[in-house]
Amino acid sequence: MFEKIALIGIGLIGSSLARVIRCENLAGHLAISTRSADTLKRAEQLKLGDSYTTDPVEAARNADLVIVSVPVGASGAVAEAIGPVLKKGAILTDVGSTKASVIAQMAPHVSQGVHFIPGHPLAGTEKSGPDAGFPDLFKNRWCIFTPLPDTEPAALERLSEFWRRCGANIDTMDPAHHDMTLAIVSHLPHIIAYNIVGTADDLEAVTKSEVIKYSASGFRDFTRLAASDPTMWRDVCLHNKDAILEMLARFSEDLASLQRAIRWGDGDKLFDLFTRTRAVRRSIIEAGQDIDAPDFGRQAVGSPEKKTAE
Amino acid sequence: MFEKIALIGIGLIGSSLARVIRCENLAGHLAISTRSADTLKRAEQLKLGDSYTTDPVEAARNADLVIVSVPVGASGAVAEAIGPVLKKGAILTDVGSTKASVIAQMAPHVSQGVHFIPGHPLAGTEKSGPDAGFPDLFKNRWCIFTPLPDTEPAALERLSEFWRRCGANIDTMDPAHHDMTLAIVSHLPHIIAYNIVGTADDLEAVTKSEVIKYSASGFRDFTRLAASDPTMWRDVCLHNKDAILEMLARFSEDLASLQRAIRWGDGDKLFDLFTRTRAVRRSIIEAGQDIDAPDFGRQAVGSPEKKTAE
Repeated sequence: MFEKIALIGIGLIGSSLARVIRCENLAGHLAISTRSADTLKRAEQLKLGDSYTTDPVEAARNADLVIVSVPVGASGAVAEAIGPVLKKGAILTDVGSTKASVIAQMAPHVSQGVHFIPGHPLAGTEKSGPDAGFPDLFKNRWCIFTPLPDTEPAALERLSEFWRRCGANIDTMDPAHHDMTLAIVSHLPHIIAYNIVGTADDLEAVTKSEVIKYSASGFRDFTRLAASDPTMWRDVCLHNKDAILEMLARFSEDLASLQRAIRWGDGDKLFDLFTRTRAVRRSIIEAGQDIDAPDFGRQAVGSPEKKTAE
Repeated sequence: MFEKIALIGIGLIGSSLARVIRCENLAGHLAISTRSADTLKRAEQLKLGDSYTTDPVEAARNADLVIVSVPVGASGAVAEAIGPVLKKGAILTDVGSTKASVIAQMAPHVSQGVHFIPGHPLAGTEKSGPDAGFPDLFKNRWCIFTPLPDTEPAALERLSEFWRRCGANIDTMDPAHHDMTLAIVSHLPHIIAYNIVGTADDLEAVTKSEVIKYSASGFRDFTRLAASDPTMWRDVCLHNKDAILEMLARFSEDLASLQRAIRWGDGDKLFDLFTRTRAVRRSIIEAGQDIDAPDFGRQAVGSPEKKTAE
């Protein structure tokens, strides 16, 4: 599909892209760049690309498609470095979880004739680094573009086709709506998960070993999100501040009301909320966005004969 | 192991017990009782026991072991009903998520010579009803007893052996510590999950269909707990109020501090918390209380060829 694709950053998303680009034969040449020499070496050992460099400029030169997959706080520096060497007609995109901030950081460094199309594949796991990627990561997941007013439809369609071949479905929306939507479906859940795991870790009355031992009764569900990449999530919090603070305020207000219902023994109010939330899960399963197996299908934990089958 | 076991309540826990009692051949006769005629009929269709009745008194009469598996708010009424007919030497236990309240409700109705041993298997899924049970539910999970001061060691050992044959590991602790521990590892996670799903459901700026469509980016992890049985969780909130309010207060305090770090752009503080929580997940996986597969092993969602293999 592209003669040369450059991947700047080779973590979970970058390395998954590298793998699917290889599987689907989407690039004549795949250039990989990352800041850390150790990570680059690991990418080379994994044979993720055709050329490897710690210099993003070298990777981006002559590329037809450049995909920036770095923590959102680093997007500006990458754009500043590679901006001058991007060739006319090239597509520049990213995969960041915040869009207004990424546009503000990157757009000033993009020359005329380069198609800058901010993007965000809603895919990932709690694992990070080049070993964590896999080619199916984007399958049946959404990739959201937040095109700028002057985006050429042909370039957008070409990038959309690329992501479709990676397995994703395409949506477009404006950056502010993206950031508000992600604040509730992704950023708030991660922040809440980090927070509750922190609260449990700080208790004196209940020991850490008790929290761990008895975690299957609910707590462990939060620990997966709370094991996500700290740098990525620090940057998300710093770069989608307004939308996150808005969602946090709503969450806290609702929690205060729920707390009051518990304090005053308002069983009907509790029952109504607990019934309403059940319907949301049903819709998610019907939409194919989660599996219906009890316990996310992991009831086999600790059962040796089933473990082997995994 | 027992000549006659009576199960009062045949939901997820009761019906899992029925299945494992059958598989492991732990009862000469298994009597099943539940309040709802429809549920009882379903249990009979599933051939979960040897006799079926909507009258708990009939089931409990002459039983050597009576296991009460009803929402904790209903424990008192069940104990009041069956108390007078329990035979001398019988063991009476329960499976409720709160212990101080269950003891307060049940103990007054237990005659001398009956061994009342409050219990709580830390096992479950988000599914409920007699169809939801399965014999492996308790495998490698913890069953906590909160014995009363006058509990006979021989009776406790007999009940422990029963639960070990059901697959569980045994712990004992005092009721207050149980209730505090469960408040953090189970009750708070469920309440937080119910709350965030409610918050998302109430938004105007982001539509319900967007929340559902994009839920794989984090939100869906919370919807599983928030799909748990509303009656059970209403009762837990009402019957472990003090410990839950204490944990909610700590959680909210920590969240306010995290919110402040986001507002003021304190990246180091965010990074430190997000790093510390990662270690907790590692410990849970090392303790065999969760699987290490990315995304709880469910990355196959929406991938038809893998779905078939599940």
